[in-house]
Amino acid sequence: MPPQTIDDLPTPVLILDRAVLRRNLRRMSDRLRGAGVALRPHLKTAKSIAIGRMAVEGHDGRITVSTLAEARYFAQGGFKDILYGVGIVPSKFAAVTALRRQGIDLRIVTDNLPVARAIADAARNGDTFSVLIEIDSGGGRAGLPWPDLPGLIDIARVLHQAPGVEFAGVMTHAGHSYHESTPEGIAAVAEQERQAVVGAAAALRAAGIPCPIVSAGSTPTAVHSRDFGGLTEMRPGVYVFNDLDQEFIGSCGPNDLALSVLASVIGHYPHRNQLLIDAGALALSKDISAQEFQPKVGYGTIADAPAKDMAVVACSQEHGFVGAADPIPYGNLPVGSRLRVWPNHACITAAAYDRYYVVDSDLDGGKAVVDTYDRINGW
Amino acid sequence: MPPQTIDDLPTPVLILDRAVLRRNLRRMSDRLRGAGVALRPHLKTAKSIAIGRMAVEGHDGRITVSTLAEARYFAQGGFKDILYGVGIVPSKFAAVTALRRQGIDLRIVTDNLPVARAIADAARNGDTFSVLIEIDSGGGRAGLPWPDLPGLIDIARVLHQAPGVEFAGVMTHAGHSYHESTPEGIAAVAEQERQAVVGAAAALRAAGIPCPIVSAGSTPTAVHSRDFGGLTEMRPGVYVFNDLDQEFIGSCGPNDLALSVLASVIGHYPHRNQLLIDAGALALSKDISAQEFQPKVGYGTIADAPAKDMAVVACSQEHGFVGAADPIPYGNLPVGSRLRVWPNHACITAAAYDRYYVVDSDLDGGKAVVDTYDRINGW
Repeated sequence: MPPQTIDDLPTPVLILDRAVLRRNLRRMSDRLRGAGVALRPHLKTAKSIAIGRMAVEGHDGRITVSTLAEARYFAQGGFKDILYGVGIVPSKFAAVTALRRQGIDLRIVTDNLPVARAIADAARNGDTFSVLIEIDSGGGRAGLPWPDLPGLIDIARVLHQAPGVEFAGVMTHAGHSYHESTPEGIAAVAEQERQAVVGAAAALRAAGIPCPIVSAGSTPTAVHSRDFGGLTEMRPGVYVFNDLDQEFIGSCGPNDLALSVLASVIGHYPHRNQLLIDAGALALSKDISAQEFQPKVGYGTIADAPAKDMAVVACSQEHGFVGAADPIPYGNLPVGSRLRVWPNHACITAAAYDRYYVVDSDLDGGKAVVDTYDRINGW
Repeated sequence: MPPQTIDDLPTPVLILDRAVLRRNLRRMSDRLRGAGVALRPHLKTAKSIAIGRMAVEGHDGRITVSTLAEARYFAQGGFKDILYGVGIVPSKFAAVTALRRQGIDLRIVTDNLPVARAIADAARNGDTFSVLIEIDSGGGRAGLPWPDLPGLIDIARVLHQAPGVEFAGVMTHAGHSYHESTPEGIAAVAEQERQAVVGAAAALRAAGIPCPIVSAGSTPTAVHSRDFGGLTEMRPGVYVFNDLDQEFIGSCGPNDLALSVLASVIGHYPHRNQLLIDAGALALSKDISAQEFQPKVGYGTIADAPAKDMAVVACSQEHGFVGAADPIPYGNLPVGSRLRVWPNHACITAAAYDRYYVVDSDLDGGKAVVDTYDRINGW
């Protein structure tokens, strides 16, 4: 018999609140439809066909992935228009081709002229490619740095002129939006993100090169952008679950967190006002990104905490150290009782698990396990 | 056809050097045999039956695990004496019993009187348990804090007197050895670790309670301890692979690192003297423990680096940002070329992968893939 409630699940385990998930999906779907921009959700967060299907409901089904393992998995789930958003290398062409031969429009990304030439060469044998050029809108990760965009036209021309290659457009990701914590600050980053990629598209068109896709997006910029002009699509990802980091930068509110880790109390240490739980560095991840704006969150905060500022203050591999500003009420938390931890960064925490146990807080307080969704990990 | 060399493997991927692994295993095996102490390797690092078998070669086969998933996996691999080293809770008794009924001597750990009583109650139905009491030798994680050892005799008496329960002894883990960086400092922690658990055993025996197992151990203390008197076994774990953290605290030398992540260069960013690789937060983990003694290691250093202090200086989910103190020689590292990254903390990095690709640096420079070993992840 499958588990009936989360009290029956072995800990640590990943809990997904479907009611919150649906609200998060609906909010983003409505916002981008209202803006007249296509939604290409970045499924690196959810890595789940079930969630991917919900995310594209009412949209045209295009998605983004971060690994070829995700591309293969979502292709099996019926997704046809897939952007692999990490710079391609020639050793991965064969895996891309295998999916394209199955009828999947798997699109790839580069910002490198020798790679563009290698793509053109690889297409000479009859295989086709669809390629976007990545632009760095200020985050300082991948992409041709805006506003100089060095080499943009050269790379695009190689791709545009190569038989068998579709030069599909330009894309950017404003990762620096994660380091702002006001709507105004994020909106300013969103405007940089928009100008960078719309500017790149304009430069290409001025050079006579069509640029059908103009793709931007992160969750914060999708939430706070004030102008989508010139963009054809947005690629938010973590909005499906949200997390402490998104809450503190202002992409969501405290009731919008869909993902938590359920853990058991495994020891009491009143001499240092701590308890231990069986969710440590592997179950929570060592991601502490939310500490940029709120140091007290540690490796995750305790849901419905019975003491002030109760959080996982340290982690070893399978032990989470829970501390609090007030004395911990140990009588309410005997060894064997359970806590839920809100993660700093949902994308990284979820990657330790092969499935979600799904509850629904709109039903019975969210205790019943109403479904399980699988996930694809690895590469 | 399986991959012939690491150049054929899709990146990112986990590479294990069998020659280094064997030297690491031999060194620890010889050291503890010489000390007259049993070796109970902590297989939370390797999580691999193949490696576990090599680790216990010439010893009696006892092992330590950090999850019940590991316990089940190693039981299938023929291991019979397994210590589950994370504080037990009643909801896990059924899983423990299932393995014990298969003839596995799965031993559990607690430091909590109500849990000891629950174990005694659970044994009334004919099931048996083997239980150790955990002692905190100064690391401040789990265990009864030494030297006070509050409740030690009460907990031990409940276990010792319960029909069906074997009170098997005491165990401790000196996690604070990871925060020392000299042989003298680590040896001092090792002596605390020894005194705490030998002292607990003496207190129990004085109270008329037998204490057959007196278990201590971390890799640093196993390497640097100067006195094993009174200990019956040691439980080092990360020594099988070693990592940057162990190198910097002095548990091993720079040629003793068996585990690396093979990654592809995916982009060149000369305007900021960086390149990107396809190993980011998931492929390397966000563990930066080695930065305590060497901040320049970032999220991992580059093996055989062509520039000074070349390291992964930042990570997003699937992107690793590689920087260096000298100008990066991009001509030697075209997009698509490969780098190997030494991780900060092997236990955490390895957990992202389901297998090791095994090379042997004593053969042909370590390029041929000579084997693959599977791993057990999750709970």
